[in-house]
Amino acid sequence: MDKIVALCKRRGFIYPGSEIYGGLGGTWDYGPLGVELKNNIKKIWWHDVVQVREDMVGIDSAIMMNPKVWEASGHLESFVDPLVECKECHERFRADKEAEIKEHEETHQGVRGVQGKVEWTEAQKFNLLVKAYLGVIEGKQTEIYLRGEITQGVHVNFKNVLDSTRIKIPFGIAQIGKAFRNEITPGNFIFRSREFEQMEVQYFVKPNEKEGKRWYEYWKNFWMDWYAKLGIRKENLHFKDHEEGERAHYARMATDIEYKGPWGWAEFMGIHHRGDWDLSHHQKFSGQNLQYGDQESGKEYLPWDIESSAGVDRSALFFLLDSYREDGKRVFLSLDPRLAPLKVAVFPLLANKPDLVNLARKIYLDLRENFMVVWDERGNIGGRYASADEIGTPFCVTVDFDSLKDQTVTIRDRDSTKQKRVKINQLLEVLNNKING
Amino acid sequence: MDKIVALCKRRGFIYPGSEIYGGLGGTWDYGPLGVELKNNIKKIWWHDVVQVREDMVGIDSAIMMNPKVWEASGHLESFVDPLVECKECHERFRADKEAEIKEHEETHQGVRGVQGKVEWTEAQKFNLLVKAYLGVIEGKQTEIYLRGEITQGVHVNFKNVLDSTRIKIPFGIAQIGKAFRNEITPGNFIFRSREFEQMEVQYFVKPNEKEGKRWYEYWKNFWMDWYAKLGIRKENLHFKDHEEGERAHYARMATDIEYKGPWGWAEFMGIHHRGDWDLSHHQKFSGQNLQYGDQESGKEYLPWDIESSAGVDRSALFFLLDSYREDGKRVFLSLDPRLAPLKVAVFPLLANKPDLVNLARKIYLDLRENFMVVWDERGNIGGRYASADEIGTPFCVTVDFDSLKDQTVTIRDRDSTKQKRVKINQLLEVLNNKING
Repeated sequence: MDKIVALCKRRGFIYPGSEIYGGLGGTWDYGPLGVELKNNIKKIWWHDVVQVREDMVGIDSAIMMNPKVWEASGHLESFVDPLVECKECHERFRADKEAEIKEHEETHQGVRGVQGKVEWTEAQKFNLLVKAYLGVIEGKQTEIYLRGEITQGVHVNFKNVLDSTRIKIPFGIAQIGKAFRNEITPGNFIFRSREFEQMEVQYFVKPNEKEGKRWYEYWKNFWMDWYAKLGIRKENLHFKDHEEGERAHYARMATDIEYKGPWGWAEFMGIHHRGDWDLSHHQKFSGQNLQYGDQESGKEYLPWDIESSAGVDRSALFFLLDSYREDGKRVFLSLDPRLAPLKVAVFPLLANKPDLVNLARKIYLDLRENFMVVWDERGNIGGRYASADEIGTPFCVTVDFDSLKDQTVTIRDRDSTKQKRVKINQLLEVLNNKING
Repeated sequence: MDKIVALCKRRGFIYPGSEIYGGLGGTWDYGPLGVELKNNIKKIWWHDVVQVREDMVGIDSAIMMNPKVWEASGHLESFVDPLVECKECHERFRADKEAEIKEHEETHQGVRGVQGKVEWTEAQKFNLLVKAYLGVIEGKQTEIYLRGEITQGVHVNFKNVLDSTRIKIPFGIAQIGKAFRNEITPGNFIFRSREFEQMEVQYFVKPNEKEGKRWYEYWKNFWMDWYAKLGIRKENLHFKDHEEGERAHYARMATDIEYKGPWGWAEFMGIHHRGDWDLSHHQKFSGQNLQYGDQESGKEYLPWDIESSAGVDRSALFFLLDSYREDGKRVFLSLDPRLAPLKVAVFPLLANKPDLVNLARKIYLDLRENFMVVWDERGNIGGRYASADEIGTPFCVTVDFDSLKDQTVTIRDRDSTKQKRVKINQLLEVLNNKING
C-alpha cells in the first residue's frame, strides 16, 4: 500500500486534496494519470452497462436535492453510525471500533495525564449527511444535504424516465456521480473518503420473490465477472453476504463484493435487493403516483429494485493494487490496456539522430488522434521502458535504424517484455486490436 | 425557449431537480438523452484539449477544499454581489437588477397593501460560495465552502503537476467538474443554476506582456472555432470584451464568448488573462514555493495563466437552442453527429414481418457495440423518422424487402431527409465515417 501511495503521488495519479494548505481530511485530487484511469473505468462501465444494453438508460441527477428526499429515503433517520463520546475531550468514535477507542484511552492516560478510567457517553447516533446552506436571505437559508448516495436521484426521477422513454420492465437506470459523507474515520488512502464517486444501476423488476431473487443473482454474477475480466485476480475477490441484522435499512438481501486489500478484505461494491423501499417511501412522502403501468398484464405496481453500487475511487484503488507487480528490479502495473492511463509510448532509439526522431514524431502525432500516447526521448531505452512500466503503459513503440530501411517498428509488450516488429502502415490497426480487443 | 424546455422534459433530456418534491430552485437533472449529450460534449472537449495536445494534461480535483484556498483566491472577499434588502420583508435583490426591484415594489404596493414608497437598505455584499459543514464533533464542525469555480483545484495542484510530469512552459492543465454558487437569480432554464459543471483550461505561459497577449488571442480564436466547428452558427456568436472596471478581481484582460439566446446575448464561456494572480496568492498564503523552474533560461518564476472557462450545461443549452429547426411540420435538432445523444435508429419496414425484424435486429445489435443506437418498430416509418428527428438522431437505417434480396439497407439523413442504399457489410464503416469524421 505504501508503495502504491508513493507511486501515485510521484507519477501523478493521486495527490492529497488541498495539500499546500495542509490538506482537508478525506479528500483527494486526481492528477494527469489518475484522471485518465478514472475516466477509463467510467467509460468502460457506461459502455458495458448502458450502451450495449437495450434494457438500460442513464441519467445524471443533481448533487443538491430537496431535503424531503432524505426524509423519505430514511437517511435522516437511519444513515447514522452509533458513536461514543469521550466525556473529557468530546471526541467521538464509532462504537464498534474497539481498537480506536482503546488507542484514545491510552493517549489520554499517557499524553494528557488523565487519572484512572476514561469515561464514555452512551453510544449515540450521528448523521453522516453533509449539511449545506442555500438561499439568499441571511437567517432564512435552507438547510440542505449533499447527497449521501446517488441512488435517490434515480428514484425521484423514476416517473420522469418512464414518461420520457419507452423502457419496459425489467429495466435499469444507470448513473455515475459524486456523493458526500461526513465519515468519522476516512482512511486507507482513497478507500474511504468524504467525497467520492459512485457508479450505480437501479434495476427494476416485477415485484415477486422469484424475479427479485433471479435478478439479484444475475447482477452478483455480472459484476464478479466484470471485475475479473478487467484483470482483478479471482483469488482476491469474494462475496460477503449480509446476514439479517447486518443489512442496511432498505435491504431485503445484500451482498458485498470484497477485495483482499493490504489491510484485509474490504468492500468493493454492493448488490442490494431494495424491494420497493425507495419508491414506496417517495410515493408516500411526495404524494405522487410512482407506479409502473405494465402493458402486458394491464396492472399498475411499484417494481422492486435490485441495486448495484460501486465506488469509482475504490475501483481505481483496487485496480492499482491488484496490478502492481515486482519482478526482480522491474516494477510494473499490469493494468488491462483499456484501463491504462496511457496506451502507447513512442521512442526514437536515439534522440540525436534526426531521421529517427522525425519518423518517430510522425508516428507519435498520428497515434495521438486515437489514443492517449506519450513521447519519450530521454536517456536510454531501458530507462524509458521502466518509466512506462511503472505507470502501466501496455505498449512501447520504438523507431530504430531498421525502421528507416523497411518501414517497420518494434512494439514491446509490458507484461511479457517481448518485442515484435510491425509494419508502420499496420501499426494503428495492430494497436487498436490490442487495446480495444 | 419554451419549446426547448418542453422538448427536453418530454423526451428525457432535462428534468427539474427533485421535481416530485416541488423542486429545489436552480437544480436540474439530466435524463437518458441529456446525459449522453453532456457526456459527448465533455468527451469531444477532452479529446481536443487533452488527448491530441502535447502541451496539456488533465486533472480532477475535489469539490471540497481547505477553506484557506478561498481566502487566498480572493473569493471570500470579492466573490460577492452587491444586494439591496427590502426593509419590510427582508428579501434581497441584486442592486443592478432594476426590473426585479421595480417588480418587488409593485408587488408590495399591490398585494401586500404597503402604503407609499418601499424602503431599501444600502447595497450590501453577499457571498456566493455555498457553505457546508464537515467533521464529527458537534459544535466543532469545520465550516467549508463548496468550490465556486473549479479553477483553484488547478492552482493548488500546480506544483504537484510540475513534480509528477515532464510538462514544459507553455503548457495547460485541463479540468472538468462541478461547481456551486448561491446564485441570487437562477434562471433561463439550465443557463444559470446553483449547481453546474465547468470545463476549464488554465494555460501557463512566460510572464511577459507579449506571451500573455499572444496566448490570450490564441485561446480566443481556438474556442470560437471550436464551437463553430461543432455547429453553432457564427452569426449567433460574438466576443464581448470586458472593459476596465467590468473585469473580475483576478483578470488583466477578459472576454466572453456570447451566444444570442432567446433572451438576448448571454455568456457562453470566458477567456481570462489571470496573470499570476492565483499562483502568487497561493504562494503567499500557503508559504510554499510555487515557482516554475525554467530549464531553458535557468530562471525561476511564477508563470502567467490564460484561462478558458466554459459551462458544460450552458454549452448543452446553446447546442440545443442553436440546432432547433422547424421545417413546415417537421421539427428536428440539427446536432453535429458527434454531439447527438443517439447516433442511429434502426427500423424494420414492417413490424409484423419476421424476416425484416430478424435482419434488422441483427444489424441493430451489431451497431450497439459501436454507437448509441435505438430500435424502433412502432407505427409507420414517417412517425419513426419524426421521433428520431426531434431528438437529433442523425441517421435512420431501414431494413426493407430489398434488404432481404440484395443485403442492402437505406440510410436516411436527418438534415436533408435523403436516403441512400448501402451494403450491410459496409454499414458500420459508412456510419463510422459519417459520425466520427
